[in-house]
Amino acid sequence: MTDQQLNALLKELTLEEKISQLLQLAAPFFEGSGSEGQITGPMASMGINDDIVKNTGSVLGLSGAIETIGVQEAHMKKNRLGIPLLVMADIIHGYKTIFPVPLAIACSWDLEAAEQSAAIAAAEASAAGVHVTFSPMVDLVRDPRWGRVMETTGEDPYLNGEFARAFVRGYQGKDLKNDLTRLAACVKHFAAYGAGEGGRDYNTVDMSERQLREYYLPAYKAALDEGAELVMTAFNTVDGIPAAGNKRLMRDLLRKEWGFDGVVISDWGAVKEMIPHGVAADEAEAACKSLLAGVDIEMMTTCYEDHLKQLVERGEVDEALIDEAVLRILELKQKLGLFENPYRGANVDREREIVMSAEHRQAARDLAVKSCVLLKNESVLPLKKEQNIALIGPFAQNGDILGPWSWLGSKADAVQLFDGLKSKTSRIVTTQGSDIESMTEEQLEEAVKAAREADVIVLALGEHSDMSGEAGSRSNIRLPDAQLELTAKLKSLGKPMVAVLFNGRPLDLHGVYDVADAVLEAWYPGTEGGAAIADLLYGDSQPSGRLTMSFPFSVGQVPVYYNNFNTGRPQGAPDAQVRYVSQYLDIPNVPLYPFGYGLSYTTFAYSDASISSDKMAFDQTLKVTVKVENTGDIAGEEVVQLYVRDLAGEVVRPLKELKGFRKIKLQPGEAQEVAFILTEEQLRYHHSDLSYTSDAGEFAVFVGPNSRDVLQALSFRLTK
Amino acid sequence: MTDQQLNALLKELTLEEKISQLLQLAAPFFEGSGSEGQITGPMASMGINDDIVKNTGSVLGLSGAIETIGVQEAHMKKNRLGIPLLVMADIIHGYKTIFPVPLAIACSWDLEAAEQSAAIAAAEASAAGVHVTFSPMVDLVRDPRWGRVMETTGEDPYLNGEFARAFVRGYQGKDLKNDLTRLAACVKHFAAYGAGEGGRDYNTVDMSERQLREYYLPAYKAALDEGAELVMTAFNTVDGIPAAGNKRLMRDLLRKEWGFDGVVISDWGAVKEMIPHGVAADEAEAACKSLLAGVDIEMMTTCYEDHLKQLVERGEVDEALIDEAVLRILELKQKLGLFENPYRGANVDREREIVMSAEHRQAARDLAVKSCVLLKNESVLPLKKEQNIALIGPFAQNGDILGPWSWLGSKADAVQLFDGLKSKTSRIVTTQGSDIESMTEEQLEEAVKAAREADVIVLALGEHSDMSGEAGSRSNIRLPDAQLELTAKLKSLGKPMVAVLFNGRPLDLHGVYDVADAVLEAWYPGTEGGAAIADLLYGDSQPSGRLTMSFPFSVGQVPVYYNNFNTGRPQGAPDAQVRYVSQYLDIPNVPLYPFGYGLSYTTFAYSDASISSDKMAFDQTLKVTVKVENTGDIAGEEVVQLYVRDLAGEVVRPLKELKGFRKIKLQPGEAQEVAFILTEEQLRYHHSDLSYTSDAGEFAVFVGPNSRDVLQALSFRLTK
Repeated sequence: MTDQQLNALLKELTLEEKISQLLQLAAPFFEGSGSEGQITGPMASMGINDDIVKNTGSVLGLSGAIETIGVQEAHMKKNRLGIPLLVMADIIHGYKTIFPVPLAIACSWDLEAAEQSAAIAAAEASAAGVHVTFSPMVDLVRDPRWGRVMETTGEDPYLNGEFARAFVRGYQGKDLKNDLTRLAACVKHFAAYGAGEGGRDYNTVDMSERQLREYYLPAYKAALDEGAELVMTAFNTVDGIPAAGNKRLMRDLLRKEWGFDGVVISDWGAVKEMIPHGVAADEAEAACKSLLAGVDIEMMTTCYEDHLKQLVERGEVDEALIDEAVLRILELKQKLGLFENPYRGANVDREREIVMSAEHRQAARDLAVKSCVLLKNESVLPLKKEQNIALIGPFAQNGDILGPWSWLGSKADAVQLFDGLKSKTSRIVTTQGSDIESMTEEQLEEAVKAAREADVIVLALGEHSDMSGEAGSRSNIRLPDAQLELTAKLKSLGKPMVAVLFNGRPLDLHGVYDVADAVLEAWYPGTEGGAAIADLLYGDSQPSGRLTMSFPFSVGQVPVYYNNFNTGRPQGAPDAQVRYVSQYLDIPNVPLYPFGYGLSYTTFAYSDASISSDKMAFDQTLKVTVKVENTGDIAGEEVVQLYVRDLAGEVVRPLKELKGFRKIKLQPGEAQEVAFILTEEQLRYHHSDLSYTSDAGEFAVFVGPNSRDVLQALSFRLTK
Repeated sequence: MTDQQLNALLKELTLEEKISQLLQLAAPFFEGSGSEGQITGPMASMGINDDIVKNTGSVLGLSGAIETIGVQEAHMKKNRLGIPLLVMADIIHGYKTIFPVPLAIACSWDLEAAEQSAAIAAAEASAAGVHVTFSPMVDLVRDPRWGRVMETTGEDPYLNGEFARAFVRGYQGKDLKNDLTRLAACVKHFAAYGAGEGGRDYNTVDMSERQLREYYLPAYKAALDEGAELVMTAFNTVDGIPAAGNKRLMRDLLRKEWGFDGVVISDWGAVKEMIPHGVAADEAEAACKSLLAGVDIEMMTTCYEDHLKQLVERGEVDEALIDEAVLRILELKQKLGLFENPYRGANVDREREIVMSAEHRQAARDLAVKSCVLLKNESVLPLKKEQNIALIGPFAQNGDILGPWSWLGSKADAVQLFDGLKSKTSRIVTTQGSDIESMTEEQLEEAVKAAREADVIVLALGEHSDMSGEAGSRSNIRLPDAQLELTAKLKSLGKPMVAVLFNGRPLDLHGVYDVADAVLEAWYPGTEGGAAIADLLYGDSQPSGRLTMSFPFSVGQVPVYYNNFNTGRPQGAPDAQVRYVSQYLDIPNVPLYPFGYGLSYTTFAYSDASISSDKMAFDQTLKVTVKVENTGDIAGEEVVQLYVRDLAGEVVRPLKELKGFRKIKLQPGEAQEVAFILTEEQLRYHHSDLSYTSDAGEFAVFVGPNSRDVLQALSFRLTK
C-alpha cells in the first residue's frame, strides 16, 4: 500500500472506527484466539462488545500460527474495510526457546550474542504470527529491591544503550517489511521506570531533568536511533506527571526534540491509571491528557474508546490529533506488510520446524554460558570428574530457571541443574535440602547425609521466579533464611562448597559469599540453564560474565552504583578527617561486588597501559592501549573495560564512566594489545543549562577488568 | 553606627582587610580564647598568621564570658580600624542547659515550648558572649539512615516551617540590637541537605526543581520570613552543583527571588570542598565560584583569603561583589550593636547566674516530658509506686542522653534514668545488662537475677550518641544485636516489660516493639532526661509527644513518609489486582509507626467532624470542626491534626498533607470542639511550570490523631 492509499484509507474511516484503531485488547476478546471468551476480572467490566472488537486496531498476548491466522482471518472478515490487526506480545528473552533474563544477557558483555538471542526470539515469534514485541526494556536501574531489574541490562547508560541497539537489530533485522522472521521492536518504558522510589514497582520517580537526560534517557534514544518502531510509556510519574499523560516527555521531547514519528503505546491500563495517580478526575480527562501527550494506542482500558468521540464533539480534542495517531498505526501495519500479507510470518510448518530447534537451544546454551558470573572461586572450580558430588538445594531439580516474562517458555522444557551435571558425571547424588522459603528436619538430615559422602557440595540456591519480575519488589534482598541456614549447616561439615545462584536481582550475599568456597551467579539462565552451568562447573566452558549492576553490601547501602560522585568529603582522601567524611559507620561505601566484576578460571595481567597523547584537541582522537596477558594455564575470556573521569566539570561528574569495552579470548600465555579510541563526543555531558557539550580540561583514563580494580590512571587534557 | 558611617568604614578598608572580613576562623587562632594555639590537623596547614587573624571578620566555636571578652578586647586592639569580631557557635538544642534534640522537640508539637528552648539557649549563650548561633537546622528528611535527622524537625514541610519560625523567634526575640539576651539565627543548610542519597551524610542530592520548591525549600523560607539574619550553605550538590558554589540557588533564588540581604556563610570547609566535588580545579576557582554564587563568609578554609585579591587584580572578580559581602557582614555587626558594645551580652556575673539555672533546667525537663513519644502501652504504664522495678540496660545509668551537637553540655550534669526513677521510688534495683554493642555472660546473668525479683522490668536501650549526628549515617537502623538479645532473654521471664529508647533516628523496632509491653521513645532528652522520663513512667506527667518522622518497618522500606503519592496502582484499591500493585512482597507499604503517631495514658474519641460548606470560592475560607473527648480516667493531651488531599492536580498530589494542628489538654470526660480555618492559600502547590497556585476541584479533608488513623473524610469543592 502506498502512502497515498494509506491516507485515502484514513479518510474512509469513521471517527468511531478511527478511535477503535487506537484500542488494544487482549487475545481473549478475539474469535479464534484459543483463549477466546476467557474474559474475567477487570476485563469483564470493560464494556467491550463485538462492534468494538471488530474495529480494534491491535491485540496483545496472542501467538501461535494457527491462532494468529485464525484471529486475523475472522477479524478481516468483520472489519468493514478489512484492516488487519497488529499482533503484539511480550517476547522478552525468547519465545519458547528461553534465553537468560536480560540482566544476565547483559552480563555476557556480548552484543552479538544479545542480538542473536533477539533474532531467534523474533524468528520463533514471527513464525507464530506475532508482529510486535514489547521489548527491549532499557530502563536504567540502581535499586535491586525492584523486581524488574532482571528485565533490564543494568546501571550504565552507555552499556544499556549498546544492548538496546543490539536487541533492536536482532528483533527488526535490516528489512522489517520483507524479512518475515523479524518483529517490530517496542522500546520501553519511557521514561525512567527503573527509578521508582524505594525500589517499589510503579512508584513515584523524581529526579532533575539533567539527571534524566544524562543517565536515564540515552538508552531509549539509542534504541530509537537503531530504528525501534514503537515506544511504550512507563507507569511512573516523570516530574509529577504520569508518563502516559506527560506532554513534555512525549510531545516535546520524544516527538519534537528527538523526531520520533512511530507509534507510542501505553503500558497495560496506564491511561486509566491517571485517575488513581490523581491527575485526571475521570476517564474523559485521562483520555484527553493521554492523546494530547501523544499516546497513540491505549492498552487494555477504554478511555479513548468511550470518550474521545465526545471530546472531539465538545471541541476539547482536535480530530487531527486522532488522525495523526491512526495514521501512525496504519503506517506501522504498512511497514510490516500487513496490508499485502496480513498473516505475515505466521506459518504452521515453519513454526513447528524452528521453535525450540536444536540450533536455537544451542544458542540459548551458549548465551547462558556467557551470562553466568563467577563471583568467587577458592580453588574449587572447575570440578573434577573423579570427585563425588552432592548437589543440594531447592534449585537442584527445578525447572523454575526461565525467569519472569518467559510467557511461552515451559519449565518442563528447561534443563535442570541435576540433569546438566548428570550428563557430565555419574558420581553425583542430589537432594533438595530445603524448599525456597522453608526447610524441614528431614530435608536437612538428608542433605547432611548426602554431603557427608561427597567430595564437593554443590548448592543450588535462589529465589523462585515470582520473587522478582514485575511487581516483585522486595525489601529484603538476601536469600530466604531457610537456604542460608542450609548453607551454614552444610558448611560445618568442612567440605569444599560451590554455590550456584538462581535469582533475578543483585542480592546481599552475606551468608553465601562468606561461607561457600565458590559462587557462580547463574541468574535465571533459561531453557538450557542446567546444561550451560554444567559446562561451566566442569570447565568445558569458561566463565566470562561480568556484572552490569552492583551487588550491594546490604539493602541499607542502596542505591549503590559505580558511576557515583565524589562528594565534597570523600572517604579515603589524603586529608580526610576520621569521622567527618561521607560514609556509613557500619559498612563500607563500596558494594560487595562492583559493576564490571567477574572471575575466570584463569588470571589476566594488565600492563603497558598508554595513551597516544597527553593532549587532545576537540577535533582529534586519542588511542588508549593496554596489554592483557593470560597468565594462567587455562584459556579464558576477559572483558577489558575503559573508564574516563572528567576531573572538573561545570556540574559534578562521576568518578568513572564506562566508555568502551572489548571481550577477548586468550590462550594460556597469550597476550594481546587492546586499543580504544577516545573522541571528544564521548566526553560530553549535560551542563546545568542542559546543553550537551564537553569542557576543556583534565581527564583521567582507567583500564581494567572491572570498575574497581583498574590498572592505573592515565590522563590527558582536552583543549579548545 | 549609621549606615553612612558603615559605608565610610567600608571605604577605609584595604582590599586585604575586606577579604579578611570574609574569613571565619575557629577559636584556637585567637589570643585569649582559652583554646588559643591548639591548632592541629588541617588547621595547622591553613597558613594563617597573625596578620590575617587580626583582620578576620568572625570566629566560631568561642564561648564563655571571660574568653569572649578577652578575645574581643585583644582583637580590637590589633585590628587597624577596631572592627569587632562576630562570635558564632553551634548552639543547637541548648547552650549548657541541654534540651531534647530537635527531632524530639518537634515531637512535642509545641511551638511555644520550642521557642522558649531557643530563648533560653540564647540567654545562656549570649551571656557567654556568643552573637550568632548556627541554628535552626530545618532540613526536611525522609531517610533515617542519615545520622543528622536528630537535628531536624522531621518530614513535613509545613511543620518544619512552623518550628523554623518558632526557633528563630526564640533566638532573635523582637529587638536583636537591644535585647542582649538574644542571638542572631543562621538557618541551615541551604538547600536540601536532608536528601543525601542513601542517607549517607554529605552525599549527592538530586531531585526535580518542583520537588525542591514544594517540599524542601518552604522551611528555609519560613525561617527567613521570620527574620533569620543568616543562611548557611549545605555540603551537598543541588542539581549537580555544590550549594557553596551554586549561583542559581543563592544569587538567583535566595537573594533575587526571595530578597534575602543578610549574610550567607559556608558550612565548615565547604568552599574548598568544591575541589573534591569536582567543580573547581583549584582554590582560586573555588573562591571565584563561591563569591559569584553569593557566599559572604568562608568558614575555616582560605580560598577567599589566599586568592580573592589576585582574582580582583586579574579582573575575574568584581571588587564590588566583595564590597557587598563585607557590607553585609558589617551590617550584621551593626544590627547586633557590636560597634557600640563589642562585648554585647557577655557578662561573667550574668553567665554565672543564669547558665544552668533551676528555671532553665525546669524548662528543659518540661520540654523533655512533651518530647517523649509513647509508641505502645499494653496496660503496663504508668508504673505503680508499690511495684518492684528492675531497671536494666546500657542507658540505665548513663549520662550520654544529651545527644549530638550539645557542644557545651556536660554528661556529668545529665539526670540519668536511674536517678530520675530513684526520686520516685525506693523499690528499684538497676544493672547494666549489656553495653551498647556487646554483652557479657555476667551482665546477662545479673540482669536476669535482677529481673526475676522485680514486678516490672524497665529496659533502657538505645544508640550511643556517636551513632547518629553529623557523619553518623548507618545502614542498619535496628538497635545493636546485644541489646536485642538482652531484650529477648528478659522477655522469657514473662514479666511486664517497658522499653525506654534513647536514640537519634527512627529505628526499625523489630525485636523491641513486638517484645516489650510498652515502648517509650525518649530520643536524646537532654540534661533533665532522667527526671522527665521518671515523671512520665510514674504518671506524674502524661505522654503527649507525636512522631514527626515515620518509623520504617525496616531499612528496606526507606524512604517511607506520610505525604507520598498514590501511584497508578495503589495497594488496596477496589479493583486492584492481587499482584500487580505498588507494594513489597515481603513487608507492608506503611511504616511501623506513622507521622503524627503517639499514645497517651488516656483515650480520646473523635466525633462530629464537620465542614462549614461543601464549596469554597477562592476568596472564602472554610471552617473544619471536630469534637474531641477524653474518654479515659486520666487527664491527657492530644494533638488534633488536620490533613487535606487534592484529589486531582495538574501534577500528582500527596495522599495527605498536614494543614493544621492543635495540642489540647482534656480532663477525664471533658470534650472540646476544635476548629481549623482553611484558606485557598493552603491549597496551593507548585505546578509543572513551577507556578504556585491552587486549582478548582475536589478536596478531601481528614481530622484525626495521626496521619494514618484519621476519623473520616469530609470534602469540599474549590470554585473559581
